[in-house]
Amino acid sequence: MLIVQKFGGSSVADAAKIERVAGIIADTYNAGNEVVVVLSAQGDTTDDLIDKAHEINANPSKRELDMLLSVGEQISVALMAMQLEKMRIPAVSLAGWQIGMSTNSTYGGARIKKISTERMRRELDKNRVVLVAGFQGVNKYDDVTTLGRGGSDTTAVAIAATLHADKCQIYTDVEGVYTADPRKVPNARKLDAITYDEMLELASLGSQVLHNRSVEMAKRYNVDLEVLSSYVRKPGTKVKEVVRKVEQMIISGIAKDTKVARVTVVGVPDEPGVAFKVFSALSKGKINVDIILQSAGLGGTNDISFTVALDDVARTREILEERMDAIGFDHVNIDEKVAKVSIVGAGMMNNSGVAVRMFEALQGKRINIQMISSSEIKLSVVIAEDQADQAVTAIHDQFFQD
Amino acid sequence: MLIVQKFGGSSVADAAKIERVAGIIADTYNAGNEVVVVLSAQGDTTDDLIDKAHEINANPSKRELDMLLSVGEQISVALMAMQLEKMRIPAVSLAGWQIGMSTNSTYGGARIKKISTERMRRELDKNRVVLVAGFQGVNKYDDVTTLGRGGSDTTAVAIAATLHADKCQIYTDVEGVYTADPRKVPNARKLDAITYDEMLELASLGSQVLHNRSVEMAKRYNVDLEVLSSYVRKPGTKVKEVVRKVEQMIISGIAKDTKVARVTVVGVPDEPGVAFKVFSALSKGKINVDIILQSAGLGGTNDISFTVALDDVARTREILEERMDAIGFDHVNIDEKVAKVSIVGAGMMNNSGVAVRMFEALQGKRINIQMISSSEIKLSVVIAEDQADQAVTAIHDQFFQD
Repeated sequence: MLIVQKFGGSSVADAAKIERVAGIIADTYNAGNEVVVVLSAQGDTTDDLIDKAHEINANPSKRELDMLLSVGEQISVALMAMQLEKMRIPAVSLAGWQIGMSTNSTYGGARIKKISTERMRRELDKNRVVLVAGFQGVNKYDDVTTLGRGGSDTTAVAIAATLHADKCQIYTDVEGVYTADPRKVPNARKLDAITYDEMLELASLGSQVLHNRSVEMAKRYNVDLEVLSSYVRKPGTKVKEVVRKVEQMIISGIAKDTKVARVTVVGVPDEPGVAFKVFSALSKGKINVDIILQSAGLGGTNDISFTVALDDVARTREILEERMDAIGFDHVNIDEKVAKVSIVGAGMMNNSGVAVRMFEALQGKRINIQMISSSEIKLSVVIAEDQADQAVTAIHDQFFQD
Repeated sequence: MLIVQKFGGSSVADAAKIERVAGIIADTYNAGNEVVVVLSAQGDTTDDLIDKAHEINANPSKRELDMLLSVGEQISVALMAMQLEKMRIPAVSLAGWQIGMSTNSTYGGARIKKISTERMRRELDKNRVVLVAGFQGVNKYDDVTTLGRGGSDTTAVAIAATLHADKCQIYTDVEGVYTADPRKVPNARKLDAITYDEMLELASLGSQVLHNRSVEMAKRYNVDLEVLSSYVRKPGTKVKEVVRKVEQMIISGIAKDTKVARVTVVGVPDEPGVAFKVFSALSKGKINVDIILQSAGLGGTNDISFTVALDDVARTREILEERMDAIGFDHVNIDEKVAKVSIVGAGMMNNSGVAVRMFEALQGKRINIQMISSSEIKLSVVIAEDQADQAVTAIHDQFFQD
């Protein structure tokens, strides 16, 4: 089998951890598999490099920042090659440009365009473990680019898709995907499997296990993906197209996102096109708006509420207040002390009682629901931030109690 | 003018030093010049990376070590680009592979084969300062190589030769080339100019200012070379083909090398071919032999003495003792407490009195000469190590006293 394995920065943070990870790689190789390994930068390397840059220039060009940051993954793969050599496992480290990882030119958040299989195939044919620096590529000018957040996951999935790998294993510091955050919800259980779509909803809802881009790519190319632990040798969570629910679970997980704010545009005129004006202004400003709620007010005016990421709050206020007269609203009200709690599950599609059970759980704890949004496999509510953990536990008990 | 500037690792060791060096680059650029800058890795970066490697594998493959070490220079050029950006000087950082720095495959000590001018020329045409990572290249397999000691000097000279630069400036932490080590000899004076050949002799004699490979390349391509200070803005020492000695100096400098040992093979048979056997064995073992002295002994045997680098002593002893019976000598005697003191100067060629004046200076201090070797522009003596500093000062006074 051809197996792509990805290990994150904390899994290769020091010599001892590199040795442990090398053990996993060696076992996979010695079992007769072809192995491509994607590594992130060690521990705090990327942050340290960013600090170095900011000491010199508070606002360096993204082109040069990518040139700088890409060294982190190069260090990881070279060190891992040395560790494997010591264990008499033939290995070769390769940077993004060496495997022909072509991207567009969006420095800091580049998109993969093409990966050349030639070099990796040649090394695999020599029975070598191929160690690839994650997170990085090269654009048409031969300049180094980085892929942005979750870049190494994306590198791994893209390589698995390109090489038609039999498996793509993402090793992390958790044992897999859980029904809820196991640090917060004691009864949270690990899922054996989850669908790409469920994983996508969970990822975008603040679950940090896998980045959305990698899951989207896995779905598109039908990559056999598994999330598992670098520390404990046991099966993790499979991410795939269709999951047969042996346990008849209706939902797969509960996620909490506290990095949101609720914005209310108060007193907009009750006339056609007003919502369009508000949201097209935000869209031009590259602000992603999530849940939207429009409520009728008194005296011919409405309120429009929506959620945005906390990081976008200042910019959102600025954009709206610039257009206050043009749109004709009264004022903007922003609440940063809210949280979005969501349940995700492919089983929801055919089960209309799910929403009721969620609301019931919240009502039991006297938690007020400010906004509601639903998709085919997701149901989100916005509530007060200080009630979020309580809400997750209550919902989890409602759905997963034996 | 097209000017190539090279700054060593201590000159870019931290943010403050990067800023100072950027000032030199900016002034050169703002004066209307095209500027290519070659940088070494910051301060202790290379040593830190080697430590990281050795923590994992005491004997890593050179291929992987080069992959690891090459990041040091990449960090330097990216940071310098950010500093120049802040000063509104357009700049672009480039790694070895990006400028088409082709080398052979001798990892850790690669030789430059060819440099593509295309990328650098394109960036210069855009009025950008081109920042090149020194010390590194790429072989025909697209693998990263490093050039070994003095690699960044060599990178700078090779680029100057390839781009037909008007000047190649090597910035260091000294103000130029001195007649002797200024830390040891108070009267040492800076030379305005020195010939390539003199510089070569001085470099190979342990003077750390410029590495031999870079000087050899400068001589071959007639590169206008200058050694000057990163810290003091004044002219340094020009290195060129012919130097007109305005001061009529017979010698240009005095160098001391304490990293040598004197090896004596005692009691070799007085018959033809014995010296050949000794030195061909050492040559096969890649041992460089320097000064050779053969002395007639009693009873039909001779002694053969020579100097080797201290690092080669163990291997030399091993090679000789393996062949003890085949060659038929008595025993090997090694003295590590010796030093080689040399005077260098193109003026020696036509001046037979130079040797006499050197010996006179040594005799005046009762320093015993163990071995002597001379070339057209160099005269070396081997003496006891603890007398070396005294010898340098005495010789310096002899030749440079006003």
